[in-house]
Amino acid sequence: MTMHGEITDRLAGVAWKGGVEDGRIVVIDQSRLPAVVETRELRDVDSLVAAINIDVVRGGPAIAIACAYGLALHCLQQGRKAPLGRGSDTLEPAFEWAMGRLLSARPASANLAHALRRMRECYDRHVGKLTALEMAARLLMEAKRIHREDHELCARIADNGAALLPDAGGVLTHGNTGSLATGGVGTAIGAIVAAVRAGKRLQVYVGETRPQLLGSRLTAPELVHAGVAVTLCADAAVGELLRRNQVQGVMVGAVHIAANGDVANTIGTYALAVLAKHHGVPFYVAAAHSAFDLAVADGGAIPFEERPADELRRIHGAQFAAADVPVANPSFDITPAELITAIITERGVISKPTAARIAKLMGSDSGEPVF
Amino acid sequence: MTMHGEITDRLAGVAWKGGVEDGRIVVIDQSRLPAVVETRELRDVDSLVAAINIDVVRGGPAIAIACAYGLALHCLQQGRKAPLGRGSDTLEPAFEWAMGRLLSARPASANLAHALRRMRECYDRHVGKLTALEMAARLLMEAKRIHREDHELCARIADNGAALLPDAGGVLTHGNTGSLATGGVGTAIGAIVAAVRAGKRLQVYVGETRPQLLGSRLTAPELVHAGVAVTLCADAAVGELLRRNQVQGVMVGAVHIAANGDVANTIGTYALAVLAKHHGVPFYVAAAHSAFDLAVADGGAIPFEERPADELRRIHGAQFAAADVPVANPSFDITPAELITAIITERGVISKPTAARIAKLMGSDSGEPVF
Repeated sequence: MTMHGEITDRLAGVAWKGGVEDGRIVVIDQSRLPAVVETRELRDVDSLVAAINIDVVRGGPAIAIACAYGLALHCLQQGRKAPLGRGSDTLEPAFEWAMGRLLSARPASANLAHALRRMRECYDRHVGKLTALEMAARLLMEAKRIHREDHELCARIADNGAALLPDAGGVLTHGNTGSLATGGVGTAIGAIVAAVRAGKRLQVYVGETRPQLLGSRLTAPELVHAGVAVTLCADAAVGELLRRNQVQGVMVGAVHIAANGDVANTIGTYALAVLAKHHGVPFYVAAAHSAFDLAVADGGAIPFEERPADELRRIHGAQFAAADVPVANPSFDITPAELITAIITERGVISKPTAARIAKLMGSDSGEPVF
Repeated sequence: MTMHGEITDRLAGVAWKGGVEDGRIVVIDQSRLPAVVETRELRDVDSLVAAINIDVVRGGPAIAIACAYGLALHCLQQGRKAPLGRGSDTLEPAFEWAMGRLLSARPASANLAHALRRMRECYDRHVGKLTALEMAARLLMEAKRIHREDHELCARIADNGAALLPDAGGVLTHGNTGSLATGGVGTAIGAIVAAVRAGKRLQVYVGETRPQLLGSRLTAPELVHAGVAVTLCADAAVGELLRRNQVQGVMVGAVHIAANGDVANTIGTYALAVLAKHHGVPFYVAAAHSAFDLAVADGGAIPFEERPADELRRIHGAQFAAADVPVANPSFDITPAELITAIITERGVISKPTAARIAKLMGSDSGEPVF
């Protein structure tokens, strides 16, 4: 599969195909991997939101990129109806409708909020100066820029993270944070792959990551594909692997990072942080700066998100628990900053994260590492 | 389903049916619960070992009882061939063969070793004094006694454990330790059920307990059946439940307990112990005294046991990971004694277990509580 421009990756989760006239979003259907490898072409905002709702597209950065494309796509379609109209007149209702619809797909995602804010800033910059079609084309350019930037910042996160991993030993990861979930090589997975490519001899352990089985279905094959030595285990087995001294570092991603460094991430992350602390093993979080939300003071202010109860009652159509048994199925958990050895971003590494250190990094546009 | 004599329980994992002439072992096929509720009649040692190997019969105490019956069954069958022969001549080879075959079904199970030791002591007591058929009948009596004793000691464990649980609040359990896994009401589950019957208002959380899904398939329905308020969650979600203050106590079982109090139990137990410690929540282990093995100094001397790799690659026939992806699938983990608030046995409660306290309890046959 070839993505727009120079960005190519066999396992990329999201891509734009075509031009201003016939553009559409192309995604790999992540809900059916690895059994079925199928791409889907999404030609409107409703299809995109539906695809996000059933995890055809998933991963904070990948969803953010897809939604930026989705906003541009909707404006292109509206723009073609009255191509020479003033942008502000003909596009505004369409732009606002798509913005609301897309934001509602993942209201807790910091990446998505960040990408849509970028799109709004682009719109605001040009409104009144361009025709509707010119504006829509400009929005597509901005979406492509967001995608390209994510690709580049993944590479920087990967390099920053790889430097922290041991030269040899076991590394534990959880969830899925690679090229399916982002616009590039990923965050935590990117760091692991970069470390191995740099010659580090790592044995990577991946929890299967119930209920979605992201570890078995997505992360294990991504790592195998990248030539990384990977071993799959039950989520309940990670404690025993640490106890047996098989793990020298934990590397995970983040869905949302509060101003004080508390991290929301795929359910199971918090237990790994407590286990890592108990065993004196470093616990790293790798994420783009867009995962930070300085308006959220701490983890307590990040709203809970519950996944469908049936995910725990049924697997692939087979019933394993009664249809009416009560279920707690939180989609992510909160890891307090004090359990985190370092947060790795494209702008640098924040050791022992605090609100002050995070504010310093978020304020810096120099790209210089902040330690 | 009615079990031998006075012991009845709708969800009993193992029962003896018939007499000396037509006796057989009746089990619920636990590998297919809850979708298919089917009993199987096992009429020889090979069928029993095969049933244990594919988890049709599971749970340390239930396996131990089934194997005691299996030994008696084999001797009855051999004894009928030459009923008046001296026991020592005609039964000895049959007894030894069955003993070796049954022990090999679960070499790491302390319960099984204990039950078979009881059967050997019975044999040794009577050898030379009885005919082959008389001896076989005596072995069946001993197996029934082992079963009845397990039933009674479960009730005592349940009472001892129930007293430790809070009057109200959340209790977390893991694995399956109820009437399917034992000859009575169970150990950890028994304590929870007894507490609720005594009027304690508990909300019980059960991890699904991958890879076998013992929590979803067996524990959740057992607790629902007993009228306990139960909520099912992913194993990876238990940390978050503790972080949200929803859990005031953890209650689990044990496969094997070393002389110093280190506990081998269903994979996932160790992580719960570390999480409980981190949150200052009591961590209880409920087990019969036969789970102790004083010949094993500590957890490091308990041999690892690995379950089939395909359990993590496939679920119910659906492939979720590549057929050749390396897998770590330990069947149990080791929880060091220092993480355990108390071990609950039928003989009493050992708070902050140490080798000295355990030796004192194991040496006591009075049935008096040892605190």
